[in-house]
Amino acid sequence: MLQNDLILRAARGEKTERTPVWLMRQAGRVLPEYREVRAKMGGFIELVKTPEFAAEVTIQPVDILGVDAAIIFSDILVIPEAMGLPYKMIEAKGPWFENTIKNSSDIEKLHVVDGANDLAYVCDAIRLAKAALANRVPLIGFSGAPWTLLSYMIEGSGSKTFSKAKKFLYTEPKQAHLLLEKITQSIISYLKAQVHAGADMIQIFDSWAGVLSPEQYKEFSLQYIARICDEIHPLVPITVFAKDAHFIRKDLRNINCDTIGLDWTMDIAESRELIGENKTLQGNMDPCLLYADYDTIKKETEKMLRAFGPNRHIANLGHGLYPDTEVEKVKFFVETIKNFRF
Amino acid sequence: MLQNDLILRAARGEKTERTPVWLMRQAGRVLPEYREVRAKMGGFIELVKTPEFAAEVTIQPVDILGVDAAIIFSDILVIPEAMGLPYKMIEAKGPWFENTIKNSSDIEKLHVVDGANDLAYVCDAIRLAKAALANRVPLIGFSGAPWTLLSYMIEGSGSKTFSKAKKFLYTEPKQAHLLLEKITQSIISYLKAQVHAGADMIQIFDSWAGVLSPEQYKEFSLQYIARICDEIHPLVPITVFAKDAHFIRKDLRNINCDTIGLDWTMDIAESRELIGENKTLQGNMDPCLLYADYDTIKKETEKMLRAFGPNRHIANLGHGLYPDTEVEKVKFFVETIKNFRF
Repeated sequence: MLQNDLILRAARGEKTERTPVWLMRQAGRVLPEYREVRAKMGGFIELVKTPEFAAEVTIQPVDILGVDAAIIFSDILVIPEAMGLPYKMIEAKGPWFENTIKNSSDIEKLHVVDGANDLAYVCDAIRLAKAALANRVPLIGFSGAPWTLLSYMIEGSGSKTFSKAKKFLYTEPKQAHLLLEKITQSIISYLKAQVHAGADMIQIFDSWAGVLSPEQYKEFSLQYIARICDEIHPLVPITVFAKDAHFIRKDLRNINCDTIGLDWTMDIAESRELIGENKTLQGNMDPCLLYADYDTIKKETEKMLRAFGPNRHIANLGHGLYPDTEVEKVKFFVETIKNFRF
Repeated sequence: MLQNDLILRAARGEKTERTPVWLMRQAGRVLPEYREVRAKMGGFIELVKTPEFAAEVTIQPVDILGVDAAIIFSDILVIPEAMGLPYKMIEAKGPWFENTIKNSSDIEKLHVVDGANDLAYVCDAIRLAKAALANRVPLIGFSGAPWTLLSYMIEGSGSKTFSKAKKFLYTEPKQAHLLLEKITQSIISYLKAQVHAGADMIQIFDSWAGVLSPEQYKEFSLQYIARICDEIHPLVPITVFAKDAHFIRKDLRNINCDTIGLDWTMDIAESRELIGENKTLQGNMDPCLLYADYDTIKKETEKMLRAFGPNRHIANLGHGLYPDTEVEKVKFFVETIKNFRF
């Protein structure tokens, strides 16, 4: 049905004619077309909650950048909000929660999300985006990982060290597990609703994976991600991106995911060795490479493609696009990948 | 001469009766005695620049916490300042530079530091601290690594991504090397002056090591650190702490340092394997462990000691102490290490 299913085939480990490519944060930020729509809506959260326009900015990078997949325009914090913790997006600062989780009664009060109802606006945006894509490329759905969502719900905002959230793990491990359980159930319901609405593939973003020790990561993050994968992998391919968690690569090989995202600090050959041959790898160019001149971008991009090899690779950055990246450089990066042949 | 030279012997690979311990950020922050002195001085930078009081807070943790070394109370940004870029320390925000490096003429204008003259106040603080320590324990001197100092000089403050500094590496690699050269010469002069003033050991802090790719790290950081080690290692033991740079462990084994600092995301057995038997390892407890109850602190600390083994280990945290850590917990961590026998 899909005219271009390269990314789905790569995720399943099938041979592809060329390496497929999409970019984290491709919808938004760097595109003037996105900034126009966002200005019209009055803000980021308003845009996330308006399916018609969320669908519009979802499709922009397919048209403008020529990527091999769309990713639904949304935010990882829609789940905490649907659980009972609303937030604001403060310009140049990031998310901010008025109420945070402090004790067991705060956890008890949290609602377990029914994805199709509580986050109907995301499902609606997925339906609209699918219709507008008209099977040109797959649509990726996503969620934050339980640990990353917990850390925002405790900290109330971003943090350099996430020491409040980590303190909670050390001082209240049982409460932490209760909270992770509620978040995990919410994520599973939400992701199933996304698949039901039309998402062809799912990505889990564990943005703050790198602040935990290997042991804590296994206890408070990996086991919950594994449960999500057990539920979603039978439905559609699922990608796990545990940013900065270099130490967990060898354990990710054992969970039910199809693709593993790498950041740019992770050596490609070493990662392949740690992860084995049975997973697709995604990534992992340093987003700052796109500040370089065209020759350097081409040289480094082709070097990356050769290091990953022709199969089981989905090209991407090792993190989201930075806001001040020139659109022409982004296009050139995408084209370099699409034009490359082994 | 020194009554307790455990840390120096551990750094040189000699057998020690027990594992020695000190803590990054032990001078300052968590101690009420420090906060008193700082309040009297009016601010952090004022305290750094007043040898008498810098020496006083240097010695406090030896008396109060019972650690096996003092580390001179100072700041990594004294070098950029001495090179011509003054900065302010903004409460709850961190350092802020009014002028930053934007082009080659900014780099040309920078002064190469003569440590003994330009940073005489640090050398004076070292002399006073050495006298007050009266050979009880060694005194550690330190510097930021060239890449970390460059990144502040370009960014003008801390950053989540250090994308401005990284952009400079990608777009102006020749200028970046000129700047790194000037910083490296300044660091070497500064560290030699510290040793001349009495520092028994040196640590290089590469705080932002983890934002570079392995390849960029080798080109823009490691080679300069290696040159510093070549100059300092013949004089006193030298420790390299490249925070978050998990990817560089196997290369650190080849440089002229005595000790390699690990953060808490780095598995101990894996690090030993990557680094080999010829370096001492330092670290690597998660600073957040000190939020836990006493039983958990004891259990996890002893587990860490066993994982490192009886030789070539200097116990420490994997990062600086967090400001809201209870002093009693810090003391307990130190005592647990000092009481442990294999």
